[in-house]
Amino acid sequence: MKETNLVCTKCKKSFPIDQVYPRCDTCSEPLEVAKMSEGRINEGSIFNQTILERYADFFPFDKVDKDLSLGEGFTPLVNSAKLASELGIRGIWFKNESQNPTWSFKDRGTVAGIQHAITLGFRRIGTVSTGNMAVSVAAYGAKADLETFILVSTSIPTEKLNPIAVHKPILIKVDGNYGELYFESLQIGKQNDIYFINSDVPLRVEGSKTIAFEICEQMDFEVPDYVVVPTSSGGNIRGIAKGFEEFRACGLVRKVPKLICAQASGCSPIYNAYINQQETISRFENPHTVAHAIENPYPPSGNEVLRKLRGEGGIFVAVTDKEILHAERRLAEEGIFGQPAAAVPLAAVEELEKKNILSKNDTVVCIVTGGGLKYTAVLEKYGLKALNCKLEELSEIVAKRWN
Amino acid sequence: MKETNLVCTKCKKSFPIDQVYPRCDTCSEPLEVAKMSEGRINEGSIFNQTILERYADFFPFDKVDKDLSLGEGFTPLVNSAKLASELGIRGIWFKNESQNPTWSFKDRGTVAGIQHAITLGFRRIGTVSTGNMAVSVAAYGAKADLETFILVSTSIPTEKLNPIAVHKPILIKVDGNYGELYFESLQIGKQNDIYFINSDVPLRVEGSKTIAFEICEQMDFEVPDYVVVPTSSGGNIRGIAKGFEEFRACGLVRKVPKLICAQASGCSPIYNAYINQQETISRFENPHTVAHAIENPYPPSGNEVLRKLRGEGGIFVAVTDKEILHAERRLAEEGIFGQPAAAVPLAAVEELEKKNILSKNDTVVCIVTGGGLKYTAVLEKYGLKALNCKLEELSEIVAKRWN
Repeated sequence: MKETNLVCTKCKKSFPIDQVYPRCDTCSEPLEVAKMSEGRINEGSIFNQTILERYADFFPFDKVDKDLSLGEGFTPLVNSAKLASELGIRGIWFKNESQNPTWSFKDRGTVAGIQHAITLGFRRIGTVSTGNMAVSVAAYGAKADLETFILVSTSIPTEKLNPIAVHKPILIKVDGNYGELYFESLQIGKQNDIYFINSDVPLRVEGSKTIAFEICEQMDFEVPDYVVVPTSSGGNIRGIAKGFEEFRACGLVRKVPKLICAQASGCSPIYNAYINQQETISRFENPHTVAHAIENPYPPSGNEVLRKLRGEGGIFVAVTDKEILHAERRLAEEGIFGQPAAAVPLAAVEELEKKNILSKNDTVVCIVTGGGLKYTAVLEKYGLKALNCKLEELSEIVAKRWN
Repeated sequence: MKETNLVCTKCKKSFPIDQVYPRCDTCSEPLEVAKMSEGRINEGSIFNQTILERYADFFPFDKVDKDLSLGEGFTPLVNSAKLASELGIRGIWFKNESQNPTWSFKDRGTVAGIQHAITLGFRRIGTVSTGNMAVSVAAYGAKADLETFILVSTSIPTEKLNPIAVHKPILIKVDGNYGELYFESLQIGKQNDIYFINSDVPLRVEGSKTIAFEICEQMDFEVPDYVVVPTSSGGNIRGIAKGFEEFRACGLVRKVPKLICAQASGCSPIYNAYINQQETISRFENPHTVAHAIENPYPPSGNEVLRKLRGEGGIFVAVTDKEILHAERRLAEEGIFGQPAAAVPLAAVEELEKKNILSKNDTVVCIVTGGGLKYTAVLEKYGLKALNCKLEELSEIVAKRWN
């Protein structure tokens, strides 16, 4: 490992970079890798690089093992002139994270976490998740040939369980309070030499930085005015913010965009704390949203997201399931089929446009966090239909209806 | 359009490049764009290029509309040292096409087809498919804001229909012989100004060339000994072969790999024709395989695949459903979750290894054509299981079993 530290996001206390426990022993807030203020991009074709290689200066590793990679990152940034015009803004882009190896942004943090685990000599990794992160850790654990513990809740449906199980992890359904399981996993990890790459461990957050780095490169280092991130645990938005800050500190971009923390109103603990002017988040009771991937009632990085965005003029938005479903459909009509959580940014943009918070000179990037095939059952809510005809009628029907 | 022609793959008769009808009026065999023998790669970062831009010299377009792109192509080539060692060969790589915008290789051909359609002035496109191609054409048609006709069979299950319908195409379930529908669509297209981007139209085949181009770049222009392609209509393997040939003709690589046409034994009309030493393929009666994506009983490019691979020492393999499922599982244990059709190449490699056709100095690239989330129901066949425990037992269980 390079000479650097972990730092508490709140009290700034320092911890060694090879510490696995992800929280401050004084104030219990999440730790992060000390910010980089020097570094450059490793030029060369991204055809033959991994994200950990291209942005090696911004990671604490001395050496990167290419074989851990499944080809994560370097996802497209798709522009929609039509939507921008309809929304009355200068530009809107979608960073399509559904083109990752396991079809969500989680793969970036997983590869960084596994690189950390292996560098520290671990042969066992794990995670607590029922969704994108579980699939991602199971896949990368298989690739790296590690013993991989995936802890899920007993209520997980078979359709979600099987795409995790296919990678052959040690898969355990745990009956009990799912919120407590996060903290329990940290203890179990300590006792059994298992590196738990949970939602906001420092190296996972570092992995998310690469989303920001790529946006900078793809926009020729002219950053957008806003970046909208579906927010659950808070790890991803923290990483994206840190990425822009580090590129600015290194002189690669001149400013950082405003971050928009977008939550589902069926589970919006961070938004609620902001609206109620609280210092810390409270557990969101009885969460219920179609955007399951961001349904964390007590996000471990919630307080830090609150502190950070408040300090920097960030924006908090919550959108209803109806708005989310409308946005998912609208996004699909632009050719991008995201899971409901991935449509939350577009729903947030629609909300902000209605409130006149966005203006005609603004540019916005939405993070499409995961693919729509993760949750196709939701499409039944749309009542999608097809026409029916016999082969011999087809010609007439086509001619009649559209000529 | 550049000055070039379409050429019949069999009788070599020429046709204008702006012809939409994809077959020879003399011998009924498929047409292809005349082979390019001059050209270079447009250098620059693939972050800011589309495949049609990077390989513009190898496409017949004067000008490319970037806005048609959803960020297709530039997919990872993932190496597995462990599998190579187990198989006793020098190297094996997986070209992971499930990281395309609609999670299959079809997006490459779709964007090329739509570019052709728009260049020729069409505002209506269509396709005949129930699977990957239907989703792809629906998504790109939406992105390009075209009237998009998707013709599917009445037997299509809702779970497959909805991910097509979400992009809002004109979706028609057609009751009748599905094989006839392919030819009927060409007539209807002609009468109604609809450009049908079916499975082996010349520009779709051109799109598939980019798979070969990328493999060359990713392997530093040292091509592998074999490239294994799951084969249904035959369009994709034709395109990949043509891509290697054009790069060789341009001096970019010194040789072309041997192509392996891999079919499911539950639907193997090309393999059967080869084994039975026939000149042309026959319709495969009562097809039935778990690899639905390659279940075409009468592939429109079947004869051309047969001619081409025979002439060049290619290999034909058919693998059973049991072998396909085994390979899908084995691939997932390498971190890559493909749909059953996408595991057919690995199953074919296992078969060739058993027959001692592959040797220890050989290098192989398998094309993983589409993602496993396309068809998760198949996982039920594996009887995948999880352990169960209560939260308070977790620590003990982990400690006891793995320490």
